[in-house]
Amino acid sequence: MVADQLMDIKQFKKTLDPLIQSFLDKKIKSLSLIGDKQALGYLNYLKLFLMEGKRIRAYLAYLTYKAYGGKKNNEVLELLVFIELLHAFLLIHDDIMDKADMRHGIKTAHRFVEDKVNNIKGIDANHFGISQAILLGDYLFAWVYEILDNNTSFDEVALKKVKLLLSTIMDEVILGQMLDLNTTLYEKVSWEEILKKIILKSAYYSFVRPMQIGAYLSGKKFDEKFFEDFGKHLGIAFQTQDDLLDIEFDESETHKSSFNDVTQRQQTFFTYFIFNKGTVRQKSLFSKYFGKHLSSFDKKILRKMFEESGAIDAGRKLIEENFSLAKKLIKSSDLEEEYKKKFLELVALIAQRQN
Amino acid sequence: MVADQLMDIKQFKKTLDPLIQSFLDKKIKSLSLIGDKQALGYLNYLKLFLMEGKRIRAYLAYLTYKAYGGKKNNEVLELLVFIELLHAFLLIHDDIMDKADMRHGIKTAHRFVEDKVNNIKGIDANHFGISQAILLGDYLFAWVYEILDNNTSFDEVALKKVKLLLSTIMDEVILGQMLDLNTTLYEKVSWEEILKKIILKSAYYSFVRPMQIGAYLSGKKFDEKFFEDFGKHLGIAFQTQDDLLDIEFDESETHKSSFNDVTQRQQTFFTYFIFNKGTVRQKSLFSKYFGKHLSSFDKKILRKMFEESGAIDAGRKLIEENFSLAKKLIKSSDLEEEYKKKFLELVALIAQRQN
Repeated sequence: MVADQLMDIKQFKKTLDPLIQSFLDKKIKSLSLIGDKQALGYLNYLKLFLMEGKRIRAYLAYLTYKAYGGKKNNEVLELLVFIELLHAFLLIHDDIMDKADMRHGIKTAHRFVEDKVNNIKGIDANHFGISQAILLGDYLFAWVYEILDNNTSFDEVALKKVKLLLSTIMDEVILGQMLDLNTTLYEKVSWEEILKKIILKSAYYSFVRPMQIGAYLSGKKFDEKFFEDFGKHLGIAFQTQDDLLDIEFDESETHKSSFNDVTQRQQTFFTYFIFNKGTVRQKSLFSKYFGKHLSSFDKKILRKMFEESGAIDAGRKLIEENFSLAKKLIKSSDLEEEYKKKFLELVALIAQRQN
Repeated sequence: MVADQLMDIKQFKKTLDPLIQSFLDKKIKSLSLIGDKQALGYLNYLKLFLMEGKRIRAYLAYLTYKAYGGKKNNEVLELLVFIELLHAFLLIHDDIMDKADMRHGIKTAHRFVEDKVNNIKGIDANHFGISQAILLGDYLFAWVYEILDNNTSFDEVALKKVKLLLSTIMDEVILGQMLDLNTTLYEKVSWEEILKKIILKSAYYSFVRPMQIGAYLSGKKFDEKFFEDFGKHLGIAFQTQDDLLDIEFDESETHKSSFNDVTQRQQTFFTYFIFNKGTVRQKSLFSKYFGKHLSSFDKKILRKMFEESGAIDAGRKLIEENFSLAKKLIKSSDLEEEYKKKFLELVALIAQRQN
């Protein structure tokens, strides 16, 4: 099934995705939904949703597993399906909270269901969509544990460590999302608060913890400090870049709807910059738009303001610095050359993304 | 901490509840929320929420554990905290879907949060409440697994069986809720569909599975058929009684808001009866009210219609028959007298409840 050589992220996705699909097929079949076409339709949406995404988190766990001497090439892939189900669960619930319509070029779960029932009289279709999407997320979350609890390829000690780490991950990522929502309540939020949610939701969740999972599965000792430092720099760069893309890109150029952060009152490096370092005029202008639906004209004005205030330049600098520090850490690490190369390729891939 | 004698459900709640509270205290403390009063406020709501409830599911697991010779009196209580966290998780997510305002006399999670932010300008307070309540539920769900994965009092084989059973429980209860929501889409739904969701959400989730958990923890072999038959009868009686209470009681008499099922288009034995066995006049009258907010006057008319149609009598008969069959199964089982007595007391307690 899997080649023994070290895969790059594209080969990895090609190899992992059929395992994800086959897990979902098996699950959906076992739920014996014969006769309930509706529920079957929602569950099949999960298959569609899980075709998308780059598999960055699972790949990072895989790369670390291999870098630390892990040899179970097929088995580790079977297991790492759980990371992508976890990620899909979190995205589906987050998309409800962010009122997002699209993700990776397809409808978000709640919109998908909403559109299915939109024409039924007497139904609150939006609420119905949210309700079923909550359940789809809950299903994925339950399956994460099912995969871990059913695994027999890895020894109990390693699996136990991964499960306890998963508890930590959940504590962190849910807290990160709670804080994220809380920062939408007010206009002026401290950089510490914004940074805390970035560290929890992006640095630890997306980078530090997946590396630890890979290392635990390999059974080898690892330098936690190295993972944390690398993950923090990569996380800050990754998240700030994501927030920059939200400002810079049009719906016509990317599948993401732009300025969603402003409409949803999301606090980012850029909103922080305006509310704290903007001129009086910029602050009051931005206040007017914060939390509102924006026309193309509004967006043009806002984009100009972000440019002129220096927020974009400062953000770009923050992104570049942190990518560069992450790369430096890899180069000076005691990873073997082959792995250094793959880690650097991954950083480069993340740095190049346009959506 | 715990007396060695067999507890009734009241003693059980008194003994279990401090363990639940102390688990939550420990967790909330470990999240180090210093400086985030808001998130701390939401998490403290969980402590309030988890003071309520009768502990029927955990008690049933305890009773079965003891009946099958389990001797770890303190340890089993520590572990069974997970059943009540699981239940609270499901209630919090269900209450979002049902747009419920109150539960056990306190605000539901989403309303609690909504009311905290209601006065903040520019915020969709309802959506914010839903978002934080999704996260509170997700937290509880993660902690369910944390409790199971951290347990060292029970042997690995028993714990593994409980964890795999938990996968089954999740598959069943989420499917039950999906079907439940789907039956709100249409007026005419078959009795098979309604019964299927009752079996999944009430019989298996509330009765059959908790008994299996207790039996697995005891390590003794058990008669699965006995659990299933008992649980099904108890589940049908329990759910139909719950649905009857929704029709019969006023807000003034109980903490539950009456006719919530009708307003939320919930399909029950009683709605099935009207839509399928009602007169033409009753059907068209009920159609008019189905899915609507109801005035006291509307409720009076509906209550009269439920009486006159024979739905109430038929429902009462269904409830009594199933309680009686459940009791019969206990009496003719090979449980020891002491346990038979406690199981029958539990059935009686459930049969007597008024809210």
